[in-house]
Amino acid sequence: MDTILVTGFDPFGGESVNPAFEAVKLLPETIAGARIVKLEIPTVFTRSAELLERAIEGERPDAVICVGQAGGRSALTVEQVAVNLAEARIPDNDGEQPIGQPLRADGPAAYFATVPVKAMVANVRAHHLPAFVSYTAGTYVCNSIMYHALYLCERRFPGVRAGFMHVPYEPGQVVDKPEGTPSMPLETIARSLEYAIEAVVSGGAGTADGEAMGTTH
Amino acid sequence: MDTILVTGFDPFGGESVNPAFEAVKLLPETIAGARIVKLEIPTVFTRSAELLERAIEGERPDAVICVGQAGGRSALTVEQVAVNLAEARIPDNDGEQPIGQPLRADGPAAYFATVPVKAMVANVRAHHLPAFVSYTAGTYVCNSIMYHALYLCERRFPGVRAGFMHVPYEPGQVVDKPEGTPSMPLETIARSLEYAIEAVVSGGAGTADGEAMGTTH
Amino acid sequence: MDTILVTGFDPFGGESVNPAFEAVKLLPETIAGARIVKLEIPTVFTRSAELLERAIEGERPDAVICVGQAGGRSALTVEQVAVNLAEARIPDNDGEQPIGQPLRADGPAAYFATVPVKAMVANVRAHHLPAFVSYTAGTYVCNSIMYHALYLCERRFPGVRAGFMHVPYEPGQVVDKPEGTPSMPLETIARSLEYAIEAVVSGGAGTADGEAMGTTH
Amino acid sequence: MDTILVTGFDPFGGESVNPAFEAVKLLPETIAGARIVKLEIPTVFTRSAELLERAIEGERPDAVICVGQAGGRSALTVEQVAVNLAEARIPDNDGEQPIGQPLRADGPAAYFATVPVKAMVANVRAHHLPAFVSYTAGTYVCNSIMYHALYLCERRFPGVRAGFMHVPYEPGQVVDKPEGTPSMPLETIARSLEYAIEAVVSGGAGTADGEAMGTTH
Repeated sequence: MDTILVTGFDPFGGESVNPAFEAVKLLPETIAGARIVKLEIPTVFTRSAELLERAIEGERPDAVICVGQAGGRSALTVEQVAVNLAEARIPDNDGEQPIGQPLRADGPAAYFATVPVKAMVANVRAHHLPAFVSYTAGTYVCNSIMYHALYLCERRFPGVRAGFMHVPYEPGQVVDKPEGTPSMPLETIARSLEYAIEAVVSGGAGTADGEAMGTTH
Repeated sequence: MDTILVTGFDPFGGESVNPAFEAVKLLPETIAGARIVKLEIPTVFTRSAELLERAIEGERPDAVICVGQAGGRSALTVEQVAVNLAEARIPDNDGEQPIGQPLRADGPAAYFATVPVKAMVANVRAHHLPAFVSYTAGTYVCNSIMYHALYLCERRFPGVRAGFMHVPYEPGQVVDKPEGTPSMPLETIARSLEYAIEAVVSGGAGTADGEAMGTTH
Repeated sequence: MDTILVTGFDPFGGESVNPAFEAVKLLPETIAGARIVKLEIPTVFTRSAELLERAIEGERPDAVICVGQAGGRSALTVEQVAVNLAEARIPDNDGEQPIGQPLRADGPAAYFATVPVKAMVANVRAHHLPAFVSYTAGTYVCNSIMYHALYLCERRFPGVRAGFMHVPYEPGQVVDKPEGTPSMPLETIARSLEYAIEAVVSGGAGTADGEAMGTTH
Repeated sequence: MDTILVTGFDPFGGESVNPAFEAVKLLPETIAGARIVKLEIPTVFTRSAELLERAIEGERPDAVICVGQAGGRSALTVEQVAVNLAEARIPDNDGEQPIGQPLRADGPAAYFATVPVKAMVANVRAHHLPAFVSYTAGTYVCNSIMYHALYLCERRFPGVRAGFMHVPYEPGQVVDKPEGTPSMPLETIARSLEYAIEAVVSGGAGTADGEAMGTTH
């Protein structure tokens, strides 16, 4: 792979930073030989998808990987599935709050990530950092951008792989939050992202396919 | 609605009881005028789907609602989506452990529940019990039976609605588990299920459609 | 033992009920032959201790057991230790908010419970309900009443045993709280309390002394 | 203050590292002008206290601060109280497993830390890292060394202040633990420790005394 487009959201929900794009900014310019193109996108249902589409058109990457904050999670999670549903608990940064709406009227109920989810998790763990597969990207703008990325790649950009990763709060965000709220420094988040992306670039698909990463319910 | 088929799984994962079917057994014989048909199914990928199909054929219910245990959750959760993926962290009760397999080669990536998920949650809460929408039914036999129920209803039993609810551990299961593991008595689980089913029977669809029950990530 | 005085607090912190006294009200009139005297006390540092002292004077119980709410805990916890510290995160029901104050200038840094803590936990568990020893009763009115009970019994009422139990939220309190907040129905809380008190009455001291109930940090 | 003795435990409970001493090793040689003396001590009830006593004799520090691992906590916690109780859930590294034993037959039920607990927490937070006061140091070797430190300073080394801090797992320890287990990189733990120690050295007592850091139960 030559080029990876990596997006991160801007702050939302009353936070003054979003560790997603802050960590993306710390990524090196190349990973495993692939050029990393970094793009900040707004935490807005409509505009984030438009910007993503334009960036894919402009950069023609081999893969697009979007990154968002999942406050309360303790480690990098690589998302397996995006669903065709917008159900916003809070308004987005443009004041949109879709409730019970499909993201694309002509889209399927869900897409599975086309990046090698388990190989990405395995490569982070191999570097002694925690990571997990997640089977829900939520119903807010994170799930929306993942769904749109996969929808766009399927219809307009065949051959481009797409996926999404959620990251924890960074420590400064949890100083005033309830005791027990996990966090991870931006440098550690960035390293986690880098190892995951390395598995994408190196075509890691298959390396961890036999490893059970599912649930017990 | 005249007839609701309600299934519950048998014990798995080293547990001696499964609160799912234990609570189903405590349901009344009728809810809001609809007859409740109770069926225990095995925690087995293959056989659970076969038994479900046969039961729908035999009973011709208006809706089929499957119930399973989600150890660690604190309240009834009504599942919004089932994905076409089997990823078993532990073998099922027949020793099957599918990893990274689709449930149905000819099925879509996911189905949304066709029961009124938000109305079900709202009716439980209206009775002063906690309940939440969940956007992942996991990747084990619970997700499998929900996916199969929706697949079967779409293809073989049009008009039959289908959904899934996860329930917490019952108190006896957490006596030797780590401090902080939530539980709920079977009677309380059964009442939660009853209120949720009541919303299905009374065609509650729509009553809570405008209420935001999504996530913030 | 002939008489057990059991107190429960009134609602505080914006809640409309306190499961502590609600569950105490559900206790039977006698447990293992001992008369149960039930007393509601205010969530107030000063007045709760005064009322407790007067009640011990009036009833001359063999043991005094105070019960309070620990929102967020999942099971009955029997407190091992009370500390000579008032550090209130929120004002009490009279608006008092002591910060960094000793409860009794002439008291020791801490008292250990004089009820058989481990036997109480063991008897609840023997009835298939979760229970744990806790090593902190907090720094609010719960810890205060436990400390005062032990202080009073040591100085004014020798021979009277004293202890404290924390109980979870009841389900109605968590309907609007974050997903994952544990709760326990009042009937289940009351049964847990009853089994714990049974161990106090029957002089359970010693029955679980050899069982390790400590921590790993 | 001229000299601070900082101890950290060796690995226990099946772990191959203990983030406590690993982070202590990363501390600078001086903090706010005070010399930092670093000492690894064994996770053993008896020998840890003996080694600590000898080190205080040898170094004659102005303060002794012990550091231990509290797996599952998400941030630095500064302990307020140590109790005269050994209740070991697992054997220590010498195979000792005291259950329900006092640590010192002639000691009080508890000691409060003599370092400025709230100022330590406040200084960590001022540097945008999470920290909390804890009101239980557990009942294992961590609580034991804190109790012994305070006992020794009271009886043999008057004027020497003593305290204890618990730290989270480091990331490598949680790779194979259940999803959601918090961790903190050693560098971040070390920075947290440094800011807390800075408040000890600079006589921070009082700076945060009016800030409520207590509980609501």
